[in-house]
This record gives sequence, structure tokens and C-alpha cells, in this order.
Amino acid sequence: MATLTELDRLRVDEGENLDLTHRATQIDLPGDPSKDQIEAELDSLRQRIGEIQDLMFTRREQALLVILQGMDSAGKDSTTKAVFTGVNPLGMHAASFSVPTPQERRHDFLWRAHAQVPPLGCIGVFNRSHYEEPVIRRAHGEIKNGEMKRYLRQIADFEQMLAESGTAVLKCFLHIGHDEQRERLQERIDNPLKHWKFDPSDLQERQYWDAYQAAYSQALAATSTAQAPWYVVPADRKPVRNLIVARLVVQALEALKAPPPERKPELARLKVV
Amino acid sequence: MATLTELDRLRVDEGENLDLTHRATQIDLPGDPSKDQIEAELDSLRQRIGEIQDLMFTRREQALLVILQGMDSAGKDSTTKAVFTGVNPLGMHAASFSVPTPQERRHDFLWRAHAQVPPLGCIGVFNRSHYEEPVIRRAHGEIKNGEMKRYLRQIADFEQMLAESGTAVLKCFLHIGHDEQRERLQERIDNPLKHWKFDPSDLQERQYWDAYQAAYSQALAATSTAQAPWYVVPADRKPVRNLIVARLVVQALEALKAPPPERKPELARLKVV
Repeated sequence: MATLTELDRLRVDEGENLDLTHRATQIDLPGDPSKDQIEAELDSLRQRIGEIQDLMFTRREQALLVILQGMDSAGKDSTTKAVFTGVNPLGMHAASFSVPTPQERRHDFLWRAHAQVPPLGCIGVFNRSHYEEPVIRRAHGEIKNGEMKRYLRQIADFEQMLAESGTAVLKCFLHIGHDEQRERLQERIDNPLKHWKFDPSDLQERQYWDAYQAAYSQALAATSTAQAPWYVVPADRKPVRNLIVARLVVQALEALKAPPPERKPELARLKVV
Repeated sequence: MATLTELDRLRVDEGENLDLTHRATQIDLPGDPSKDQIEAELDSLRQRIGEIQDLMFTRREQALLVILQGMDSAGKDSTTKAVFTGVNPLGMHAASFSVPTPQERRHDFLWRAHAQVPPLGCIGVFNRSHYEEPVIRRAHGEIKNGEMKRYLRQIADFEQMLAESGTAVLKCFLHIGHDEQRERLQERIDNPLKHWKFDPSDLQERQYWDAYQAAYSQALAATSTAQAPWYVVPADRKPVRNLIVARLVVQALEALKAPPPERKPELARLKVV
């Protein structure tokens, strides 16, 4: 893919001194494709994702976990729908993480995430994830740097274990600007068909914008590894955001080099009666 | 839909004296549509399923559970893929039930099924289900009629509870003929790309064909209710099978009459800063 370099530029380097406020929230794609051209490429990427998943499913030795994080209204739901609609539901598991329930709070913060990790042979999507707890607590000033670092080490260890167990991890931070978020939240208020999406707490959290950018910068830099890299996806323009995530998913799936279905020589000349 | 009457004819009546060996495994669709016409209708049905699911998701008050049963190679996997690829993965949960694990065996037979029931707002598909245990045990002569009846009463009670809790239940028996199964199992042997699908136990189970037809006949008749009806889907021809299941799913979703997204008048004139 000619876009490999483009994608690499979005990657967070391990231990990078990341400042998300210096990362683009919108970019022009090479060749400046039209909306129709983007949709056509997205279609073919979706098909490719489905094909590779079909192949992975025959051996059930590998899985891909795609983690989507971002500020409220960054488009985690829409991206999931746009990129993964087209995968066989038997090989696909999408999980959304909301405010922890009282039962979940009685467990360590990785417990509920672990329970939703895709089985081998499948693609999993985390719509929010185990990054929520440390980032929210840090943005609200509830924890100091030492505790934040401990969380992030625990996450890195957890993700390394997943990768070593056959589950590749791809992490996308859907990066929108402060103005873009205002427009999107206002749209949820002004358009009655979007009222169901509006959560008053989003307005509260918006007041912590700078603290969230700082907490995410720290979290992404500390947990972007070769086995579980973070990409900062410019997300102000929805078609561009979808296309980039789809390209990243295809790249990650192709890197698995899923072998062809297993052959069983012992079946030769067997006749069903 | 003009096909409502056609679909009704496939339904199992409550308490019917059902004999599956007298039910068709292939039918001609009215108007004898070409393969391309079938695929075009399937496309639009898939889109309709996605639209209604999107709507259901906004209120999260209703769900649909589709149960697929059938003899080995009847096409449970392929039907799931053909009908439900196109639903937003966030609103879709497909579960496959295989031989119970030792841990699952320490629970009642409904336990693992209950855990996989879709949450409100979602569509769930059971690829095999809680019908496996009673049907297999009955077909193998491990249980007498009294115990079979108890299983089936427990299932009917469970499904009634689901329906009363907002989860509509639609059950499709994918009905293939004895010859068709032979051809399909042979194809899994002769085509190395399908070796991964071949399970030697399928040949064992094929020897119990008649006993399975009888056990399924009993199970379907005893558990086909207004709230959780069974349909016997002629499944020798794959495109016809897919189309019928898709029509049944759309019919079940439309019967839910999902209301439009909730409006929140208290949001009027709120400005995001």
C-alpha cells in the first residue's frame, strides 16, 4: 500500500514526548480524493477485512483487537459501524465500555476488559476500553503521576500478554479539535433525532478538555509499543477518519499473514454414505 | 409484504402433530426469481435489518433473538453470515454453541444460553442453542419422553420470560434432506479448502438421522408459541434458504414497531460553550 508512510506518520513512537495538542485533527489525504472515491476505497477495505477474517476463522490461531478511544463525540460508534459492518458477525465482537457498574468496581480495572477480548479467529472492537479509568481519574486530578504510571505499566503488561497469546492489538485515538466537539455536541441538542445521544455529563467533561489532552498524551506515549501501537487519527472529517482506521485495520490484519485453511490428508478417499 | 402467506405456511403451529419428514427441504419461490434477483432482494432486506436495528438501538427497549438450528451442514454459519453481515457490530451479537465445556456441564442447560442473550437494543443470533442438549440426548435414546417433555417445558418457560422482558424470539429450523447432507459432507472431504470444517463426529451423528428428525419434530411442536414461533425453512437451496430467513427476520423486526428516537424537550435552547 502506497499509504504505508502516511499511516506511519500517525503512529505514536514508544516513549515519545507526545503532546496531542500538536497533532493534527484534520489532514488532506494524498491525491485529495472526493467523498465518492473515499467511499469506494472504504468499500473495498471493508471487503478485505471480511476476507481476512474469514481466513483467520478457519484456524482460530490469531485474533485482532482494535481499541478506539477519543473525546466525547469523536466518533467511536460511527467508526465501528463504518469500518466493521461487513464482517461476518460470527467472527466479530464489539464491546462498549460505559461507567463501571457497582459489580465491576469490585474488580480490578482490567477485569471487564479482559472478559471482552475476542477469541482467536475473531476481530474485536473496544468502543472505549481499559484506558478510561486512568485517563478520567488523571484528568480530574484524582490520582498523582505515580499512580498513573502504575496504571499504564499494568496496561502495557496486559496488552503484551494478549499479543504474546496470538491477539494483535491496534489502538486508534480518534482526535478531534475543541471547536469540532462543540459543533457536534450542539448538533445533538439542535437535532431532535440526535437527542438520544446527548448526555449532559458530556458538557461537564468538556470543561476538563486540556486535562484530558494531557492525560491522553501521557497514556498514549507510555503504552504505544511495537506489539500494541497507538495511532492518532485526525477525526474532524468523518470520511477521512473512517478511511484511515480501515487502512490501519487492513494493515494490521495483513501483518498477521494468516495461513490458508488447514488440510487434512487423512480425509483422502473417505466416502459419506 | 406479499410473501407473508408464504412465510406463514412454513410456521409450526402450537401443539401441531409435526413430522419433519413431511416438510419440504426445497421449494420454488413465487415468481421463480433468478439467483441475481434473490441476491438483490437479500441486499435490500439486509439493509432493512440494519435500519431497524439502528432505530432499536436508540431506545434500547427491545431486542430480537434469532435461533438457528438444523442438522450438521444445514447452513447455520452461512445463513448467519448471509443475513446479518451488514448490521452495525455494536448492535449485533452472534453466539455459537458447541459441545459444553466441563464448567458449562456443572450448570443447568439454559445457563450458557442465557448468558449470551442479546441486550435490549440489539439483535442476537444463536448458532445452535439450548435445543441441542434435549435433542441430542433424545436422539441417542439417553432420555425417555418424560424427561424430554420436562426439557421442552423449561425451554418454553425460558423463552416466554425473554419475550415478556422485551426480547422477541424467532426460531428457524434449517431443514435439509438426507441426500443433501451427504453431498455437503462429501464436499467437505473432497475440497481441501473445506477440510477445516469437517468433523468426523458428523459422520457418527448422521447414523442417527431418523432419530434426530423425530426428536426435532417433537421439540419444535412443543415450543412453537405465538411469542417464540418456529419456522421450518427449506434449506437444500442456499439462496432460497437465506432469502426466507432474511424475510422472517425483517417480519419479526417490523412487528416490534420500534418507536422513533426519544426527544428531550428540556434540551431546547441549550448552548455548548
